[in-house]
Amino acid sequence: MKFKLILSFLLLTTCFAAFSQAKPSEKSKTHNMTANEKGLIKVSILYPYAEGKTFNMEYYETKHMPMVAGFLGANLVKYTIEKGLSAGAPDQPLPFMAIGTFYVKSLSEYRAAIAPNIDAIRADFANYTNAIPEIFVSEVVK
Amino acid sequence: MKFKLILSFLLLTTCFAAFSQAKPSEKSKTHNMTANEKGLIKVSILYPYAEGKTFNMEYYETKHMPMVAGFLGANLVKYTIEKGLSAGAPDQPLPFMAIGTFYVKSLSEYRAAIAPNIDAIRADFANYTNAIPEIFVSEVVK
Repeated sequence: MKFKLILSFLLLTTCFAAFSQAKPSEKSKTHNMTANEKGLIKVSILYPYAEGKTFNMEYYETKHMPMVAGFLGANLVKYTIEKGLSAGAPDQPLPFMAIGTFYVKSLSEYRAAIAPNIDAIRADFANYTNAIPEIFVSEVVK
Repeated sequence: MKFKLILSFLLLTTCFAAFSQAKPSEKSKTHNMTANEKGLIKVSILYPYAEGKTFNMEYYETKHMPMVAGFLGANLVKYTIEKGLSAGAPDQPLPFMAIGTFYVKSLSEYRAAIAPNIDAIRADFANYTNAIPEIFVSEVVK
């Protein structure tokens, strides 16, 4: 009888421990995800819009970006894709059709990983665009 | 005796439920955080670099961006700041000194919130830059 009572209390304590641990670990995870980006290097590939220029977003998202991401290994923290909608004012031309961005820890590692694959990357351009991309390297401040 | 045994089993079951719930809920949270950005509208304010152009990042980060973010209310999901480092090749000029980006749920709500404050926002430009910013609106694809 006493043994069962002790067992019950032990289980109850474990239960509370399990429940109370769930929240802080979730919180620290959320916090890390936000704080992690500060100081990272962003390599953005911008596809300028001009008349007659085309961009196949589906190919870019499902083939090109995953291929390049595959070259980057553990240096790559994440990559994003955005689709251009408009400039600031309705009468201004669209600046970019699309932007792809690699968030990396080290720019020199990024360059070292891209260099041996640059021909394969450039040869793939024709599969989704006739625009010439511009590259912008920046650092995440916030 | 039987009652205590049943109680123990009940507690044990609850324990397993607590532990097994902890992981999926954390996972779905992580997943949501990643997926949350998809479909969001990015309003990016780009400060082009040119000779003689200046940019005070400290003022931008501590005064200007928090002021504008304050106008956006619950429509604002997050905002980011990046500092321009270089173009793709060392011989090319830096495209932008800085980019500030508001991630919002609704572009029309963003515009409605900015319109009555546009004079205050523009008047603040002189406090951190002599460049004329360009605006680019895009949608998060991934």
